[in-house]
Amino acid sequence: MDKQEIYKLLQQVKTGMVTPEEAVLQLKMQPFEELGYAKVDHHRGLRQGVAEVIYGASKTAQQIAGIVASLRSTGQKTVLITRLSAEAADFLVTQQSEFTYYEIARVGIVGKIPKPSVKGKIIIATGGTSDMAVAEEAALTAEALGNEVIRMYDVGVAGLHRVLSKLDVLMQARVVVAVAGMEGALASVVGGLVDCPVIAVPTSVGYGAAFGGLAALLAMLNSCASGVSVVNIDNGFGAGYLASMINQMGEQQI
Amino acid sequence: MDKQEIYKLLQQVKTGMVTPEEAVLQLKMQPFEELGYAKVDHHRGLRQGVAEVIYGASKTAQQIAGIVASLRSTGQKTVLITRLSAEAADFLVTQQSEFTYYEIARVGIVGKIPKPSVKGKIIIATGGTSDMAVAEEAALTAEALGNEVIRMYDVGVAGLHRVLSKLDVLMQARVVVAVAGMEGALASVVGGLVDCPVIAVPTSVGYGAAFGGLAALLAMLNSCASGVSVVNIDNGFGAGYLASMINQMGEQQI
Amino acid sequence: MDKQEIYKLLQQVKTGMVTPEEAVLQLKMQPFEELGYAKVDHHRGLRQGVAEVIYGASKTAQQIAGIVASLRSTGQKTVLITRLSAEAADFLVTQQSEFTYYEIARVGIVGKIPKPSVKGKIIIATGGTSDMAVAEEAALTAEALGNEVIRMYDVGVAGLHRVLSKLDVLMQARVVVAVAGMEGALASVVGGLVDCPVIAVPTSVGYGAAFGGLAALLAMLNSCASGVSVVNIDNGFGAGYLASMINQMGEQQI
Amino acid sequence: MDKQEIYKLLQQVKTGMVTPEEAVLQLKMQPFEELGYAKVDHHRGLRQGVAEVIYGASKTAQQIAGIVASLRSTGQKTVLITRLSAEAADFLVTQQSEFTYYEIARVGIVGKIPKPSVKGKIIIATGGTSDMAVAEEAALTAEALGNEVIRMYDVGVAGLHRVLSKLDVLMQARVVVAVAGMEGALASVVGGLVDCPVIAVPTSVGYGAAFGGLAALLAMLNSCASGVSVVNIDNGFGAGYLASMINQMGEQQI
Amino acid sequence: MDKQEIYKLLQQVKTGMVTPEEAVLQLKMQPFEELGYAKVDHHRGLRQGVAEVIYGASKTAQQIAGIVASLRSTGQKTVLITRLSAEAADFLVTQQSEFTYYEIARVGIVGKIPKPSVKGKIIIATGGTSDMAVAEEAALTAEALGNEVIRMYDVGVAGLHRVLSKLDVLMQARVVVAVAGMEGALASVVGGLVDCPVIAVPTSVGYGAAFGGLAALLAMLNSCASGVSVVNIDNGFGAGYLASMINQMGEQQI
Amino acid sequence: MDKQEIYKLLQQVKTGMVTPEEAVLQLKMQPFEELGYAKVDHHRGLRQGVAEVIYGASKTAQQIAGIVASLRSTGQKTVLITRLSAEAADFLVTQQSEFTYYEIARVGIVGKIPKPSVKGKIIIATGGTSDMAVAEEAALTAEALGNEVIRMYDVGVAGLHRVLSKLDVLMQARVVVAVAGMEGALASVVGGLVDCPVIAVPTSVGYGAAFGGLAALLAMLNSCASGVSVVNIDNGFGAGYLASMINQMGEQQI
Amino acid sequence: MDKQEIYKLLQQVKTGMVTPEEAVLQLKMQPFEELGYAKVDHHRGLRQGVAEVIYGASKTAQQIAGIVASLRSTGQKTVLITRLSAEAADFLVTQQSEFTYYEIARVGIVGKIPKPSVKGKIIIATGGTSDMAVAEEAALTAEALGNEVIRMYDVGVAGLHRVLSKLDVLMQARVVVAVAGMEGALASVVGGLVDCPVIAVPTSVGYGAAFGGLAALLAMLNSCASGVSVVNIDNGFGAGYLASMINQMGEQQI
Amino acid sequence: MDKQEIYKLLQQVKTGMVTPEEAVLQLKMQPFEELGYAKVDHHRGLRQGVAEVIYGASKTAQQIAGIVASLRSTGQKTVLITRLSAEAADFLVTQQSEFTYYEIARVGIVGKIPKPSVKGKIIIATGGTSDMAVAEEAALTAEALGNEVIRMYDVGVAGLHRVLSKLDVLMQARVVVAVAGMEGALASVVGGLVDCPVIAVPTSVGYGAAFGGLAALLAMLNSCASGVSVVNIDNGFGAGYLASMINQMGEQQI
Repeated sequence: MDKQEIYKLLQQVKTGMVTPEEAVLQLKMQPFEELGYAKVDHHRGLRQGVAEVIYGASKTAQQIAGIVASLRSTGQKTVLITRLSAEAADFLVTQQSEFTYYEIARVGIVGKIPKPSVKGKIIIATGGTSDMAVAEEAALTAEALGNEVIRMYDVGVAGLHRVLSKLDVLMQARVVVAVAGMEGALASVVGGLVDCPVIAVPTSVGYGAAFGGLAALLAMLNSCASGVSVVNIDNGFGAGYLASMINQMGEQQI
Repeated sequence: MDKQEIYKLLQQVKTGMVTPEEAVLQLKMQPFEELGYAKVDHHRGLRQGVAEVIYGASKTAQQIAGIVASLRSTGQKTVLITRLSAEAADFLVTQQSEFTYYEIARVGIVGKIPKPSVKGKIIIATGGTSDMAVAEEAALTAEALGNEVIRMYDVGVAGLHRVLSKLDVLMQARVVVAVAGMEGALASVVGGLVDCPVIAVPTSVGYGAAFGGLAALLAMLNSCASGVSVVNIDNGFGAGYLASMINQMGEQQI
Repeated sequence: MDKQEIYKLLQQVKTGMVTPEEAVLQLKMQPFEELGYAKVDHHRGLRQGVAEVIYGASKTAQQIAGIVASLRSTGQKTVLITRLSAEAADFLVTQQSEFTYYEIARVGIVGKIPKPSVKGKIIIATGGTSDMAVAEEAALTAEALGNEVIRMYDVGVAGLHRVLSKLDVLMQARVVVAVAGMEGALASVVGGLVDCPVIAVPTSVGYGAAFGGLAALLAMLNSCASGVSVVNIDNGFGAGYLASMINQMGEQQI
Repeated sequence: MDKQEIYKLLQQVKTGMVTPEEAVLQLKMQPFEELGYAKVDHHRGLRQGVAEVIYGASKTAQQIAGIVASLRSTGQKTVLITRLSAEAADFLVTQQSEFTYYEIARVGIVGKIPKPSVKGKIIIATGGTSDMAVAEEAALTAEALGNEVIRMYDVGVAGLHRVLSKLDVLMQARVVVAVAGMEGALASVVGGLVDCPVIAVPTSVGYGAAFGGLAALLAMLNSCASGVSVVNIDNGFGAGYLASMINQMGEQQI
Repeated sequence: MDKQEIYKLLQQVKTGMVTPEEAVLQLKMQPFEELGYAKVDHHRGLRQGVAEVIYGASKTAQQIAGIVASLRSTGQKTVLITRLSAEAADFLVTQQSEFTYYEIARVGIVGKIPKPSVKGKIIIATGGTSDMAVAEEAALTAEALGNEVIRMYDVGVAGLHRVLSKLDVLMQARVVVAVAGMEGALASVVGGLVDCPVIAVPTSVGYGAAFGGLAALLAMLNSCASGVSVVNIDNGFGAGYLASMINQMGEQQI
Repeated sequence: MDKQEIYKLLQQVKTGMVTPEEAVLQLKMQPFEELGYAKVDHHRGLRQGVAEVIYGASKTAQQIAGIVASLRSTGQKTVLITRLSAEAADFLVTQQSEFTYYEIARVGIVGKIPKPSVKGKIIIATGGTSDMAVAEEAALTAEALGNEVIRMYDVGVAGLHRVLSKLDVLMQARVVVAVAGMEGALASVVGGLVDCPVIAVPTSVGYGAAFGGLAALLAMLNSCASGVSVVNIDNGFGAGYLASMINQMGEQQI
Repeated sequence: MDKQEIYKLLQQVKTGMVTPEEAVLQLKMQPFEELGYAKVDHHRGLRQGVAEVIYGASKTAQQIAGIVASLRSTGQKTVLITRLSAEAADFLVTQQSEFTYYEIARVGIVGKIPKPSVKGKIIIATGGTSDMAVAEEAALTAEALGNEVIRMYDVGVAGLHRVLSKLDVLMQARVVVAVAGMEGALASVVGGLVDCPVIAVPTSVGYGAAFGGLAALLAMLNSCASGVSVVNIDNGFGAGYLASMINQMGEQQI
Repeated sequence: MDKQEIYKLLQQVKTGMVTPEEAVLQLKMQPFEELGYAKVDHHRGLRQGVAEVIYGASKTAQQIAGIVASLRSTGQKTVLITRLSAEAADFLVTQQSEFTYYEIARVGIVGKIPKPSVKGKIIIATGGTSDMAVAEEAALTAEALGNEVIRMYDVGVAGLHRVLSKLDVLMQARVVVAVAGMEGALASVVGGLVDCPVIAVPTSVGYGAAFGGLAALLAMLNSCASGVSVVNIDNGFGAGYLASMINQMGEQQI
């Protein structure tokens, strides 16, 4: 039962077609039936998207292969696997014909990355080249969920001209994901240039007083630019997923 | 020059109607002309909205009154003033006919809160009644920017039935702002129930190991629910502004 | 001299049968005689339970084997070894006929897990599958001490229906151990659903701003649910031991 | 619907007397009816106890008086108000005939503290006299909920003889609440002397590197004694409530 | 004995005109004679500058007046007093004819601010207007020490055009002092635009996760721009003093 | 376009020879042309120095070799590579004839270290021998940029005579770089002895409460000596670069 | 029973004159008799000194006066009261003829400061004048306990000549107490100059990254000088007491 | 020139036999002559003891062997090497006839541990067996410097009887070194039982919220027992050295 169905049900309650008791019952029964499935999918709520997501970190290669097979057998075209080790990928490649492993992002994709289903563009910008692993996790997630992604890497604020020279690209974005370690200033600078939501991802890149991403995290939380919000350190998947959610809002009718 | 105009300009560049040099020049000159104005408005980029915003914390009552007068004289219908002390409000009420002061939120509004300009609804939920000050700052901000806001206060997770009993309301939201102090679990619970973006606002409510909002902040950053992002502790304005930005995306055509 | 004997002695003092001086002397002499034994058992006070516990972390396989042999020779039926490395387990299996190694929990048990000696049930719930190592240490500890344990794994709050679908099981608990990393919200949610003591165990699961369990620890300490208390990060043994202590209180008569 | 009723209902489901659907419906409807009441009582689940509890910190004297009146009119004999300011107490004393204010603990009690309903004793120990405010909040909470409380104040570990001289008293406890600031060693020392659960409450007493209770909190979490768990800094109410819950477990039959 | 004299002495040692023993003796005796004076002046080594500096925070108005009188009697033309309370200033104004109090900076100056003695310019930039107190302490310090200072306030990175519109001014600087709270990104952005040393001053401006200047401090320490170094939070004096030291290096001949 | 050219351009604007529009255009076009190059050089603004710098940490040996070849082909005489692993150095030595690897500093230099271009001396002092790796990174950076460097290692404050015995050397410095871990007192002691800027570099040397350089960092930020500023923990390059910038200021004419 | 008596008793055990049982009994009974007294004296074990100490922070003026009277009636010549507020002192002066209040140190002394009972000298050094409050608490404590104290204030390391000019005084010390805030370097510098124990006291003096004494505390713990140990932030009493204990060791014969 | 000689010199100044100038010169020249030696010995001031100490952590086996040889050739009987790796020890054993390696303490001793030169005893107590490495470093250091050491291991406060059963031993100590990780309560308990200085050494033993020794460090700094001071986490050498210094004070005549 996806969001549309739930909404329809609730409107039937309003018009008296369904009693509140029945509606509550239907809503509450729902999770029970879904339960087996929910255990397969640790990333809640992706069911309505074009891709299914598996969090690879705590699973063996065999377990992942099993889940992928089960998903594909139900017709799922694209399966995204995050935090996938190179070893597990080596095993998967022997099991799946349509499998691609993105080493830097530690992401595996079974099936094809779908064509973008909406016109809006997501821009993923990074402060340096070392932030690329996190940025790619975000980018591949957004692409697997049906979005067009523009990568704008190594535009750190210490060389402001690099950001400025891409101002026209930045301004086409419906959402920007700003990925940066060290002082994390990219989020503020980008947030000051665009009018759309900026999702800031601090990375653990840096040394010394970077304290594993804490410096960038605090800087981003304190951004004086409006429209900036923050996800966990190195959480590329979370940023890509949220960016997709926002980017696809324009198409939905409620 | 708003985003649409900029976009138009850049497309003229693509078609050869404008040379890149001219376009860059136009873009770069723009800030110069705006500069005087920008000093008035510390919240960048609100120009396109229905309300103008003044950050009241670092200004005297006289300064605020002056800026309000200047804005009103240019035809601005609604002016929102955040972090406004009761003393400054006492002064403003003697200067402005259409002034309302919201004491709990420490927000003042000159002119009328506009009618919602989009159909989507923003839900602002809080864990406890003590989170209300921050929540109201978010709610009034979103309302002043032309959104319909539904308040859902005191639905903390220790009494889960309160959240569940409002499931139908929650599901109508295009964006949810989850405001909570202490353990900040509200963001995760709400994030697990809805399919739309959740903006989490940690508050400094709590004592002892709450460490002025740090506990809630860390919990929210680590939320295992997808679609959750976080703003600074007690940053009700930031959450309301971002919620408005996302809520109004559906209407924009690119 | 166990707690009952001490209590009897002290009542003899009250009734004048024993002078305070004699009583104090008896009490104080006690540790001297026990001393050799106490050095064997680093977990104080387990003597009255059905199992003896060895903390394996700082001991060689040979030392552990020696202590086990010594305990078994005095008639001890069950010996629990926590933080036992796979290497040490490999050695022990060659020394003991009745030895089982639980790899995930890093726990070894010599002898049989006893039948539950009380009717109450301990529920051990986890937020995710990665919290299982800590949860199993708690579960095996409680079982070795004579309790019935119900495992309820992967019921994290981002999928609330999972917790709710097991409400009837939760309500049978005399004690709940809530094991969770990341944002640690499970303790609050469970604490809001049951009427019995909840022992919260933060785990070091998570990344970035989880800071090795600190986020979960702070969240659990700030839980707005009543009846929740917290043990050290990853301290499954401590939680299982305390849960057993509480679960068995109903049987004791004072 | 209290825990017994819920349990009965669920057993009817097992025996087929009630369908699962009906049961879920009954369970879920329940919160709706309770909702008005739950808003009155921010401390969930105290309904089954002898006292009702109001958290006074975020309420005006008038609001508190209103809630008290409403509770008394439904026959509630004892009402406990925590974090009650002296000012609010001054007002309440003019409204209620049976009102007592405990200044040190900042607790007010309307009605009589009930006679202990169980035989077990709760011992509340403090490291120093400055920990007394927190300890009294715990003690009065436990007493209002129907427990016998023994106060054992100023038995800090730097004068070990003080603890030892009260060994016989300590050994009668079914639960010990150990309240201490500074280095928080009391929890470990007491935990090493008794066989019952120890609830440790760090206090913000101390200066310099005490960091507002952080030193005591960390020490208590790291206690090498078994059976110790920790609540939030200065959380006397939470400790008293949990102690009562454990102390009364022996009487409950499931 | 200033640096030039010391250098001369040491060269006499090299050429054999003075024995090392004599030189060491002369050097070491020096502090003894200066000692009384050094107690007057807590800011070591300002003797060679045009102004003498008094740290006002830990002194009474009377003490400060006494020191000022003593300094003026020896011919000192300008005396700078930092962290001077308004109350102490009220007293000083009655004692000194040529006294000016700068309320925002909490700085008092006795005598005239000297004309710049070098051609180089120091730019003091701030992120917001609330950073002005710290910036003015830096600016007045640098001016009192004989430098030309250009103030460039409220050029925070969230409105990048403000910085860019002053690029030509920025490029004239021999040293830039970048004063900013919140996310502290100004240092990185400015550091990326100029070729001269940038002294970053984090301020305690901000709320929530700004943690009293910690966020800005960490961001500035992690700046990816070269040529940036950092002083203590709110240390305007230190930045102004160091900026003066660097600015005046070009004139010195060694 | 270096700083001199930019300055000339801006003066032409002042005199009316160039319109502001043209000037801004020229300035803004500049980055575009440089962009490819800027990607090669992650250390902004070194173009005007005698050496080009490559940050080796995030690059493969092949990538580094490629960049070096490209730089050398444009006539660059000296190339400095920081954070260069021994493995990458082993590869580079097979590719470049004039390559030297400094193992302790993890620095590689292609070409010759140039003769000092200015008379001023930079002193690099360390507290202990274990700070040498960071100190050498600073020293080699400064040398590669054309400065004379005097090394003064192992002069920690616990043996004050070591610092004092080198007082004459210290006094010849135009800039001092003070490198120290543990308690970081060297910066304060040196800052109290010299009249020139002191750049403090905390190192991660130490154990226990050194917390990876945090203790030294805080101590240095709190230095009561004037003229001291701080760079990131272990940031030898940053200190050497800034020291060079300051040391060469005397020669520049504006 | 003081330490000498206890030692005598234990030697009687060795020679068989007393059975171990009797000895233990005597030792254990001791605290009971002392108990009333121990409650008066919160600073354990001062009984053998010439002064009795009262910790004034948590007591009313009336309570303090009562304890003083009780002590004086038993013949105690000197009573030291630490953390005594000016208000309480105002009351005490009306009750006691021989009472002196030291305002800076917040210490009151009833009776006369005794003549030094040992030849050794304790030196109390401070980094700045603002550390004087803590230093005086240490100095008065040591004096009240019968020691000769030499004050050496304002000898901070940024003016090294001040320390050096007092080298001869420093070298006469049997113990040095080094009191400093900000960067806390004094402990290391003094520790490197003397051969006796150095007790370091971090103070909460400073601002910004001093973090209430944390910077000084960490620096002192990391001191590379041998013979340095640390007490809590601002703990002048503890340092003075320990210094007295060490200073008087030379006289004791065991 | 040792302390006695310096003192003699300074008294000659007092009596006029030596001018202050000559004295200062003699004092200052001293370090020059010692300088080569000082570089050999990183532990300042051990020259007067019976053993010389080498800090092995940052030296190669060859370097250590060289220093040992040099020291032995000047007649040094005992050489202590701390933080010595097993690999370096393997090399040393082939170079030195009288070499012993203590693996747990990571300490090597060349020559014989001298007979105690004073009557006083140092007690080294640990909370658990895992603290033994640090305790042994302290014990061997104290022994090598000529002290009698009594080891009292595994007397953690959770089993209070273990400490109490050794009360007679504890009371013979002139100094106690209390080594403990986890909650660090041992220092407070021991400090409350003895009348002599207690040097507390926090260890990095523990997990979770032990935070690498931080919990124990904070607890020890906040000890409510008098006479307790603290050294760095795991700093066994520092504690042993300071204990030796205090223990030997009784013999020295001034």
